Parts: sequence; structure tokens; C-alpha cells
Amino acid sequence: MICLTSDNWSSAHPEILASLNLGDSPAPAYGSDSLSQNAREKLASIFATQSDAIAFCLNGSGANLVTLSCLLKPYDAVIGATSSHVHVDECGALERITGSKFIGIPKASGKLSPDDIRPYLHSRGDIHRVQIKVVTIAQPTETGTVYSLEELQELASFCRSENLDLHVDGARLSNALAEKILKPSDLTQMGIAALTLGGVKNGLLFGEVAMVFDPLARKHLGFMQKQCLQLHSKNRYIAAQYLAWLEDDLWLKMARHANQMAQGLGEILIPHAYSQTLDQGSNALFCRLKPKAEATLREIADFYTWDPADRTLRLMCSWATQPEELQQIKRSLQSM
Amino acid sequence: MICLTSDNWSSAHPEILASLNLGDSPAPAYGSDSLSQNAREKLASIFATQSDAIAFCLNGSGANLVTLSCLLKPYDAVIGATSSHVHVDECGALERITGSKFIGIPKASGKLSPDDIRPYLHSRGDIHRVQIKVVTIAQPTETGTVYSLEELQELASFCRSENLDLHVDGARLSNALAEKILKPSDLTQMGIAALTLGGVKNGLLFGEVAMVFDPLARKHLGFMQKQCLQLHSKNRYIAAQYLAWLEDDLWLKMARHANQMAQGLGEILIPHAYSQTLDQGSNALFCRLKPKAEATLREIADFYTWDPADRTLRLMCSWATQPEELQQIKRSLQSM
Amino acid sequence: MICLTSDNWSSAHPEILASLNLGDSPAPAYGSDSLSQNAREKLASIFATQSDAIAFCLNGSGANLVTLSCLLKPYDAVIGATSSHVHVDECGALERITGSKFIGIPKASGKLSPDDIRPYLHSRGDIHRVQIKVVTIAQPTETGTVYSLEELQELASFCRSENLDLHVDGARLSNALAEKILKPSDLTQMGIAALTLGGVKNGLLFGEVAMVFDPLARKHLGFMQKQCLQLHSKNRYIAAQYLAWLEDDLWLKMARHANQMAQGLGEILIPHAYSQTLDQGSNALFCRLKPKAEATLREIADFYTWDPADRTLRLMCSWATQPEELQQIKRSLQSM
Amino acid sequence: MICLTSDNWSSAHPEILASLNLGDSPAPAYGSDSLSQNAREKLASIFATQSDAIAFCLNGSGANLVTLSCLLKPYDAVIGATSSHVHVDECGALERITGSKFIGIPKASGKLSPDDIRPYLHSRGDIHRVQIKVVTIAQPTETGTVYSLEELQELASFCRSENLDLHVDGARLSNALAEKILKPSDLTQMGIAALTLGGVKNGLLFGEVAMVFDPLARKHLGFMQKQCLQLHSKNRYIAAQYLAWLEDDLWLKMARHANQMAQGLGEILIPHAYSQTLDQGSNALFCRLKPKAEATLREIADFYTWDPADRTLRLMCSWATQPEELQQIKRSLQSM
Repeated sequence: MICLTSDNWSSAHPEILASLNLGDSPAPAYGSDSLSQNAREKLASIFATQSDAIAFCLNGSGANLVTLSCLLKPYDAVIGATSSHVHVDECGALERITGSKFIGIPKASGKLSPDDIRPYLHSRGDIHRVQIKVVTIAQPTETGTVYSLEELQELASFCRSENLDLHVDGARLSNALAEKILKPSDLTQMGIAALTLGGVKNGLLFGEVAMVFDPLARKHLGFMQKQCLQLHSKNRYIAAQYLAWLEDDLWLKMARHANQMAQGLGEILIPHAYSQTLDQGSNALFCRLKPKAEATLREIADFYTWDPADRTLRLMCSWATQPEELQQIKRSLQSM
Repeated sequence: MICLTSDNWSSAHPEILASLNLGDSPAPAYGSDSLSQNAREKLASIFATQSDAIAFCLNGSGANLVTLSCLLKPYDAVIGATSSHVHVDECGALERITGSKFIGIPKASGKLSPDDIRPYLHSRGDIHRVQIKVVTIAQPTETGTVYSLEELQELASFCRSENLDLHVDGARLSNALAEKILKPSDLTQMGIAALTLGGVKNGLLFGEVAMVFDPLARKHLGFMQKQCLQLHSKNRYIAAQYLAWLEDDLWLKMARHANQMAQGLGEILIPHAYSQTLDQGSNALFCRLKPKAEATLREIADFYTWDPADRTLRLMCSWATQPEELQQIKRSLQSM
Repeated sequence: MICLTSDNWSSAHPEILASLNLGDSPAPAYGSDSLSQNAREKLASIFATQSDAIAFCLNGSGANLVTLSCLLKPYDAVIGATSSHVHVDECGALERITGSKFIGIPKASGKLSPDDIRPYLHSRGDIHRVQIKVVTIAQPTETGTVYSLEELQELASFCRSENLDLHVDGARLSNALAEKILKPSDLTQMGIAALTLGGVKNGLLFGEVAMVFDPLARKHLGFMQKQCLQLHSKNRYIAAQYLAWLEDDLWLKMARHANQMAQGLGEILIPHAYSQTLDQGSNALFCRLKPKAEATLREIADFYTWDPADRTLRLMCSWATQPEELQQIKRSLQSM
Repeated sequence: MICLTSDNWSSAHPEILASLNLGDSPAPAYGSDSLSQNAREKLASIFATQSDAIAFCLNGSGANLVTLSCLLKPYDAVIGATSSHVHVDECGALERITGSKFIGIPKASGKLSPDDIRPYLHSRGDIHRVQIKVVTIAQPTETGTVYSLEELQELASFCRSENLDLHVDGARLSNALAEKILKPSDLTQMGIAALTLGGVKNGLLFGEVAMVFDPLARKHLGFMQKQCLQLHSKNRYIAAQYLAWLEDDLWLKMARHANQMAQGLGEILIPHAYSQTLDQGSNALFCRLKPKAEATLREIADFYTWDPADRTLRLMCSWATQPEELQQIKRSLQSM
């Protein structure tokens, strides 16, 4: 079966696997080895920050919670789209681990603008109400859409003016960066407070990155990483993967490939789809297909029905999606 | 430098590394793939339990918190030796994530007996006081000692009679099993409530195991694993390591080697040590050396001063410790 | 100024105040005195339950959290109307103290039906998602509406069939009971899991009641009361108030008076209002007034603008609202 | 029976009861009324601080948790004597509500000095360990002892130099102030971070005071009070009690009486006691009595056996203890 289920289903990239052969020598644990320091410095250089802003974590939910923990007191609230991973798909880790409330804004696009957030700010200073402190967005969003640089800058500027922290869930940030919509350093320059950078959906075996840019919040980073169960003892095996991932822009090449596969799949599906949101600029398509096309696709591929109510499907490509798989889909749809 | 610092400093075993070559095919995420199921079944068979009692976690603190979360309400307390990892070295994760209090019993041996626990049970039913619900022990302990099978059975029997849950931190359980002090199935047969099984200190890159035997508590396992940030998307890369680890008793062979190296090191050190606790039956030695011997050892090896007050040292071997390294230490001490 | 702001602004009823004269004799603390036991038994008899189902708490948010704590594990979620006090007006205490997520359903009426809840149940058993365990409603609701007995029974029956716990926030339950819409024992007979009963909005100085009917959950009640900071040392001063409150149906008389005042106020306002929801069967009115009438009312009375967007006002009466105050309002509106 | 059980068993003082007659007029809720403001200003003046440093809470555990919540992040730890109320008698509220670990120092006197704390500071900066942030003491202590002004100043100075926050549990502070050992303003001048001031053990019906002096921590006070379930709607009924309590030094007069009763009781017991710690300068005695004396006392008085192991008794007086009761005890012991 062709895998259009999730980029999480893909295997590790061979160059990433190869990076794990570190030999038999021992090395300091918990990130105090030189490989870990190199990887933090490499990331810091790319994201225009300092290496102590960076902590390797164990999974994406963990990286989200570590960064959010650095920003929140328990009476603070996080506001984000109702489709946010931190709201929907982390089994309430936010509430349990930070004690903070999540306020969800329903948005079909998955993208927030200052106008979406403004109405929720009227209770600031009222001790009966939680205090909105963090705005969380995903780039790309969980629904495959991508913020433009201008949209991000407008949101970051709004957050700064309202004394809010902007948190970016970058579980698939590579897929946005690969389209040259923005550079990594744009995020730090516009003043976001924290970022999570995901590698596992893009070729890694394990290990995600937490970045906290705000200097005061950054002081909590190591403790929150440890207390939130995200400090790996043999951290150099995460660091080695990230060094290989960044080498020669492998991360961006894998992401660009995944995006292109999604774009190509979208072109194949246009004649068979009801809706036309088939090129969103990342590696995921969300569409409704005509019944016969959907049935045909189901025979040869695995994928999720995103919304059972209206039969919206999610079709996701990865670094490992093969052009031949697209051709197979094309042929099947043509001959149905 | 010879590494006697921690088994966490050792590299991954070559056979474990080799197990990660899973090819390019995609597979279901979050542990629903066949490799993950095979690994759970293999572990279940060895520990005489069911495969749904087993969850792969991301690190040792995480496995501890996942299992403890299945057993605790926030007004319950955990009692254990003051040397417990969950008390000393997890940055307060227990308190933050479960809300429960830890009650520490000072024990030089790191080992608890029913007589140690009994005096703390007098407040049961008093709503002003936390209620002791879980007894946590480590096998081997954090100070390198090992419970005999009889000691474990006595403790398990006491816990059952007092309606307490016995939790075993098995971060280095392989090192105890390798000495044939007990069999894995002894733990389930004596009725412990939960176990964590560590692989990373014994040859793995990442991934630890949480086991919850109590059938009622087990229903929480998957949710607690996810909410405690311990569910890995590409879980098959943990499962593959465990399958290789269990194959041909590699885990026990590595552990036995580590224990033998520690025993051999102890023999070398006897003439140079003040205290004689140099064979504890696991891979760690705790000793005080004569000043000149300590200084000589420091020139060629890395290790921790465990207790700065009395200069007790911790010397730890691993699967990767080389007999040549022991010979080098022996020669250095002889020629000083 | 006439107080239409909140029943919280009213003073204590003289008979309640008088009940506090307990003399100089000491008595056991923390609710183990005979007055406390009498009050628990009296309430148990009225609500057709046992006295150990009842705990006196210190405020309404506290009673809500104590009861919810008895029902929830941290990965469980609470579902309720977005207007719920526990969601909007408790500063995130639910999330902080239980670790659980609140899922808000927007309802203009503030009232939930099975059809509102059903769509949210599709993720049961999915470990990536919080698990809906408790349905919370308020009777009357925070927007002054009242569930009929049939509506409550339908909801209770639905919850039972779906293995959900029904939690009733009865901060103003007296106001619903006073209208004979339902009897106290109806709630226990229909199988709700927990109830909070409020006295402070209806004549008391301090002290609210938590009731947990589910026998398993009830075992947690005393510990959760203490750990949630809701156990009063001089509990007899709460108990004395409740005994006076229940004596000769004072609670229902006060509530009926407040309801009648609200009804009378509604009749006065009809000619001056845009909307007609001026008799809701409890002690609160929500309405939009014509500009001149609103301005006139503002000169002589205090009240909240509930929704600044559409200028909906909340006008609330209490046991202490005087008929003369209504007459004064009527005259002012007539002569404007 | 004569009550020597607890000052919590005493009734409310008649002048306090009388203060509750506030008439029928409504007033703003949640502490925004003028009586509440007056009471905060009066306390602020006495304690040489600002009125926004002061929040009325609902019970002593609540006041402790509100103040500690203002000072702690979840990876911070609280250090205190093992006899601390917050450790022993609050059912783990500290751990649940703040997520922080309590580190207990065993001290027979219940009093801490810098030398007791210093050995626990060696792990500062180590992300594997909780970070000691708050030193909590009680004045008087839970075992009836009293810190001298010099001892307090030495501890406060040590905390300042080590960047620790000093938290004072003043559940019975009146009893120390009544002895003129220190003035209220001494506490603010020496730079303690937070104080709880108890009224219920000294004549009040309900209501305790939380004070946070540190200006940064103070910004959290209102939110923490609300989120920790400690904000009373009809706050003026707490404020009125405190105004009456402070009027003409009633609080100090009641406390001095309680202390004198304890001192008198101590003198009576000297011939019948094994140990001589019978005048501790507060309202509690801890002593071991000869068997016949203990049996005689048990026939006419209620009290706790504090330590069943060595039969230490706690005998506690209050504002309501009568000189005649002491005479009755004296006579009984003389005629046994």
C-alpha cells in the first residue's frame, strides 16, 4: 500500500541512520558532550540565536510542553486555533503539566490573525479569569496551510504590542522553510518567544528541538526539559542526527521533496476532487474526492478521513514518498 | 580516559545499532506496527504478563512517571529510600506530574524492608495527611546494592497485606537478572504492581519500558504514556532495539560483562581502599580510596565523587568497559 | 443605589447571623462536632443520600473543584456550556487543580442536551485525545435559565448510558427548587454523580456544600476537600448556618422571594426592552433595554453589562431585594 | 471536659461575632468594598507594607498555598522543618497545587538556622535536581517554640544572601507578637518574602490573611488567591472580623491570655512532668507526664498525644481558656 497516512509513518533517512555510527567510545551524558554542543551551535547559527536557547527533546509534544512551561504561570492561558496539536492531540498534556487553560479559536484555515485574538483580551487584569499570555501557532498548520512572512510578522508585532508571547509549533517547519516563504532567522528577528523544530516527521528516528528565545524564559529551559521528562541521557545520538540533517541542507531537500510530491498528487487529483485546496504549499493535502475516485484510491493507499462529517481526506507525503507511487495513483484513477 | 562515570556514557552496542536498519518501507506510527507488537509480546512472555501491560517510553524518568501515574491519586504518597532516582534525580517530576508527595526513608544500603515502612503507615485514613499508596524500590538500587529474591518477596508480601502497590525501578534490572538472583517472572509472580525496565544504560540508543501489571491500573497506561509525553511516533525504532537486545540474551550478556568488570575492578582496588563494599553484585562500586590511589586513578579515569563529605567514589562499568582498561588501572596502581 | 449587580452583594440574612451565636463552649474541629454531623444528616435526608456523601466547603469554586476532583483522572475531560462558571470564572482552577481539560460547547441558553454532547464522544479510547468523563451543568444556569425535570432526567439517563458522570453546579440551586420544578431527591434518584449546593448567594455569610453520590468517588471526598484547601477548622460555624437555612424552609423562602422580585422587575421592564427573555424562572434577568431606559436605570441601580457587544444587561435580585426598590425603578422609568 | 486539644476548638470571641452585624445593605463582592479596603489598609499599616500586598483567604492551608504559589515555579523546592504544617498537615496540597517538592529537615525544636539549610544548597544549578527557592518557617512553630528576633534576622539575612525567599507561616503569629518578642514591622524590615497571618485560632470564625511583600511576586497575588480557591465573595464578613480583631489590640490581648494560660498550666504541671519544656513562650505545651498525672488529666480534659512513641502530650490553650479550668486541673492533680 502507498502511504499517504502520515509523515510519521516514513522510515528514517539512510544518511540519518548512518550518522548514528558514533563508534564505541564513551562520551558525557545529558548533552554535555561535544557533539551535542556542536549541534546546538549549528542550530543557533541557523536560527540567529545563542546555543543556550536550544534543548534537544524526546518528542514533539515534549518539545511543545518544555517551551510552553518556560513561558507560563498556571493562571496564564494559551490561545490558539482549535486544530492545534497541543489542544487536540496531546491528551491534555498542556493542562496537566502547566496547569494552564487552552482557549481555542475555531478557524477553517488553521491560521490566526490579530483580529481573531483581540476579542479574547478583554479580561486582562480580571482575577476571576485566566490571563492570555501565549499565542500558539503552527507553521505549517495542522491543516497543511502556511503563514506568509507578512502574516507572521503582523502576528508577532501584535503579540509584542499586547505583551503576549508568540509560540511556534514547528513540527513540520522544514516544509515551510523549504518553500523559501521565510528564513529561520526571520522568526528570531520578528521576536517570537519560542519555537519547536521537528525532525522526526522529516527523516529522523527520534529527537525534536525546543528553542526559547526570550532571555528570561530561557533560564528555565534546562530545568523544564528535565522535569518534563525530555532530557535524553545519550543525547549525542540526537545531536548526530541533527548534524546530518542540517548537513548540505538535507532537511530542506527532504522537505522540498515531500512538498513536491504533495503538489504532484494534488495535480493528479484535481479532476477527481470536489474542492480545490489541493496545493497548500506544504506536504499535506486536504480534499474531498468523488466517491469512485476515493474508493479507487483506498484500494492502493492508506490515508486518514480527516472529517467523517463531510468526508474530507488528509493525504500526506514525506521525504520517502516515491514518484512511482504518484504514477501508480494516476494510472489507477485514469483506468477506473 | 577510561570511563567509570556512568553506564549512560557508553555507546550503543553494534548489534543494537544494526537493528535500526529497518529499510525504507513505511509502517504505522505510535506502536501499532507489527514490530512494536512483536516486541511487546516478547517482553510479555519473558515477564509472564500480557502485551497490553507494556508500553515503550522515551526515557527512564518518563517510564517511572508513566507507571506511577497509573497507580496514584494526588493525595496518595510514594514512599522510598532517600537515594531513589525518582526523589533525587528527576527534578521533582513526581511532584509536578502526579501532584503526590514523596516520603523518603534514609537507608545507607538503599534497600527497604517492611520494618522501614511500617512506622509511616500510622496516618492511614486521616484526611489531614497524605496516604501512602506506593512503595518504590530500585533493583539494583541507585547505590549498587541488590535485593535478594527473599527480600523482594517479603516486601511484596508486606505490600499486598497492607494494600500498598510495589513499584520497581528497573533502570538497571538487567544487571540483577544477569546474576541469576531472580528471574523476570519472579517479579510478576510475587505480585508487584509496576516495573520500569531500562535499556539505555545497557546498550540501547534510546527507549525504556513501562510495565503495569495491576489490571485496573493498566487501563490508564496508554493515556498516561501519551499525556506524560512518552509516546514515540516512530515506535518501531524502539521495538527493533528491544528485539535485538533480547535476542540470544544479549541484554543479559552485556549486563553480566558489566558486572564482571565491576567485580574485577573491585578486586584490583581492594588493596587501595578503606572500605570493603567492593562487590555488590551489580555494575557499580562505591568505595573510599587511599589518597594516592585516588589521585592515580583520577589521572587515567573519569568517575564521580558520590559523597564529597567522606570522599566516597562511584565507579561504574558498562557493557563497553574493556578488560584492557582494568589492566591499565591495575598497572597504574601497582607502579604508583 | 439599588443593587441588581449580584446576589453575592447581598448581606447575610438576620436568622443566619443569629445562628452563629454558639456560645463560648469549645467543640471539636474539622467537622467532627455534633452540629456538623446534624447538618450533614439534615442535608442527606433532604437529598436522599448518606451523610458521608456531604462535605462543607469554603466557597463555590472550592466545592466545584472538590467534587470534580473526586470524579477525574488528569487525562479525563469535563464538558460543559462555554458559559459555565467552572470554565469562565474560576481563573483556571479546574485545569490547575485537576490537570483536566475543559471542553466548552457554545449555547445561548446555557443549557446542554444529549445532542450537544454526542458529537464530542467520537474520540473515546483514542490515547491521543482527552477522554470525556464528566458532563457539568448548572441549575439554574449562569445565564439564568432553568432545566426542566424532564430535561435533567434525559441528560442523566444519557450520561448513564454513555458511562459519563453528571455534575451539577447548584450555586443557585435554591432558586430552581423554590419554583418546584424539581425536588432535591429528584437529583439523587436520576443518578447524578455529584452536586454543589450554594448558600452564600442566598443568605449565608460563608460555606458551600459538596455532595458526591457515586459510592466509589465518595471515598475520595474527605481527602480532596482537605487537599483542595476547603476544610474549615471551625466547621460548626458553617453547619449552624445551614441548619438555620434549612429550618422552616428559610432557604426556599429566600429563593422564592428573589425569583419573585426578578419576575416583578421583568414585568416592569417589558415596555422598555428589546428582547422578551424577561422571565426565566430564577433570580436573574438578561435583557437589552432601550437607550433611554438603560440610562435611567443606571442612575438609580448598579448592574453588569453582560455582553458589551450587544449591550445585554444582567439584572439580579436576591433575598434582600425590596419591593420598594422595584417601585422606585417603575416610577423612574415612567417619569423619564 | 476542659479543652486543651487545640485553639481551633475554641469558639469565636463575642466582639468578633458582634462585628458581623453589618446591616442589610448590599456591598460590592470579592473584596472591592470599603470595609475590605479599610481592613487591608489597617493591616498594611501595622505590618509596614502596602495594602495590595494583602489578600484575605479562607483557611490557613489556603493562605500558605496562595503565598507559596506566588514564589514558586514547579521545579523550585520548599525547605522547612519536618514538623511544618505545610508538610505534615495539609494533605499534600503543596505538591498538588504548586508541583514543588518539600525538603524536610528533622529538628526537635521545630526551628531552623542557616546551618541547617546550607548543606542542602549544593545542587543549585544542577538541572537534575529541584532548586531550593523558599525557606518556610512557622512563628511560633508547630511544636510551640518561638524564634527570637535575632534568630529571625539571621535567617532572613542568610536567605537574602543566598537568593532564597523566606516564608513565615504565622497561623499563630499573634501568640509570638503578644510576648513582644518582635513587632509586626520587624518582619517586613528584615525582608521576609511572604507571611500568612492567622485569625481563626485566635478568636475568629473564619478568614486568614496572606501577605506577599516581594513586589514582583505580589503581582501574582490576586490571581493565585482566586485560582487556589481562596477568594471569598462576601469578603466584607472577613474584613469586619479583622477590623474588630485589631481594634484596641484585641488580637494581642487574646493571644497574651492564651499564652498566660499555657504558662500557668506549665507551672501546675512541673511537679508531675518528666521533661521541663513547659514554658515555650506561646500557647502550647509539649510534655511527658507521670502516668498517674496523665491519667488524672485525661479524666477532666481533652488533649492530643503528640508522639505515641514516647507519650509526649500537646496541651494547648486559647483565648477562651478559663483560669477556673486551670484551678480545676490543679485541684485534681493535688488530690490524686
